[in-house]
Amino acid sequence: MRAAKLASGGRLLGVGVGPGDPELMTLKAMRALGEADVIAHFAKAGNASHSRTIAAQHVRAGVTELPLLYPVTTELPKCSDGYRDAIRDFYDGAAAKIAAHLEAGLVVAVICEGDPLFYGSYMHLHARLASRFPTEIVAGVTGMSGCWSAAGMPIAQGDDVFTVLPATLPEDELARRLRDADAAVVMKVGRHLPKLRRALQTSGRLARAIYVERGTMADAKMIPLAAKPDDDAPYFAVVLVPGWEERP
Amino acid sequence: MRAAKLASGGRLLGVGVGPGDPELMTLKAMRALGEADVIAHFAKAGNASHSRTIAAQHVRAGVTELPLLYPVTTELPKCSDGYRDAIRDFYDGAAAKIAAHLEAGLVVAVICEGDPLFYGSYMHLHARLASRFPTEIVAGVTGMSGCWSAAGMPIAQGDDVFTVLPATLPEDELARRLRDADAAVVMKVGRHLPKLRRALQTSGRLARAIYVERGTMADAKMIPLAAKPDDDAPYFAVVLVPGWEERP
Repeated sequence: MRAAKLASGGRLLGVGVGPGDPELMTLKAMRALGEADVIAHFAKAGNASHSRTIAAQHVRAGVTELPLLYPVTTELPKCSDGYRDAIRDFYDGAAAKIAAHLEAGLVVAVICEGDPLFYGSYMHLHARLASRFPTEIVAGVTGMSGCWSAAGMPIAQGDDVFTVLPATLPEDELARRLRDADAAVVMKVGRHLPKLRRALQTSGRLARAIYVERGTMADAKMIPLAAKPDDDAPYFAVVLVPGWEERP
Repeated sequence: MRAAKLASGGRLLGVGVGPGDPELMTLKAMRALGEADVIAHFAKAGNASHSRTIAAQHVRAGVTELPLLYPVTTELPKCSDGYRDAIRDFYDGAAAKIAAHLEAGLVVAVICEGDPLFYGSYMHLHARLASRFPTEIVAGVTGMSGCWSAAGMPIAQGDDVFTVLPATLPEDELARRLRDADAAVVMKVGRHLPKLRRALQTSGRLARAIYVERGTMADAKMIPLAAKPDDDAPYFAVVLVPGWEERP
């Protein structure tokens, strides 16, 4: 990160603020927030932004804030033209707002839960802006690291093959991929929990699967998946399938 | 993390210090180092420890340091009995040294490059000690996050399947797994580079593969793999295969 602001133009910072615990922010993220003229964050309209909550202590008084409010999240199917058009327009509009600040010579920090370039909305802005403006990424602790750390659960080591799977995959596809990996994290569990449980059973991985809700929050919940009822699971719950076997 | 030291016994902290840039340490890692009575780190005998170098500014003067020196790294094949016995004895001995400090009521921080429970040596101590002593993990930014952030390369998004592969796998296995994932990171590239290049070619992923050396160090090197000669690659070089295609 260059210390001085560019005279001729702005600077875009994609800033990871980690998985939830404000203490899991990096020193570099704190510095970026201190340098920013504008702090942008994603949120669903009417909901608090996780990233904004995590970073709250480090948002300078008087800084310009730019909330970027998703027009849709789960109301429309992701494969529909309606969803695709709405979300494309949203990212185009958000990028245009940020570009206006950058063209005015300002430093814009987009704060992101976890790591900016790992399953984050920021990358849609990055794809639209990074070729036009000086851009820097501040890596963050991912949500999944937060989860296995909170659970005290070694996830992968040595020559393990490690895989991240969305629970949205079909059941047989989940089972095949779980069987094919030494260690796995399954994301976006929510209403897919019963299907995921069957896939873990089929692939012989149910006994070592750990269910985690609100990973690094104060009210985190971690239990063996085998002991968790199928009744309800939030969208952002994850299941950890550690690869730890036969170690020296 | 509890603020007070247990009267009756010690506390083990597995502390991720991130991928290399000392600014990518978390606030929690800094606090853990401030609280520790003993700071342990892994290193190869005769070599500087990466984790110790990263954390240098936050190691208190006068703290007890406990270097844990690997007896072997690449001198013996990993599948040999000699390697396995030597490394098991090493971890047993390291755990015994740490246990002695914990039994004396001290706080022992084991500092780890990247994230402690993701492909780290710390987990061998964790497996030996966490059931016997109060233990806490401080998650860290992984080496791979450091690499894709330094490269400004969005790695995975939406419902992508993301996989971490060791370059030690056989060529056809690498090719199959690369083809089967939307996004991948290949670790431990070193002398496996020519084989990995062939596997990327076979799987149709060569054009988007990025070669990264010394990810978040000041002298990082990032080039399209297609432009990198096969002549030499360090053991810790990685190859990023981003999954970014057809985005809104």
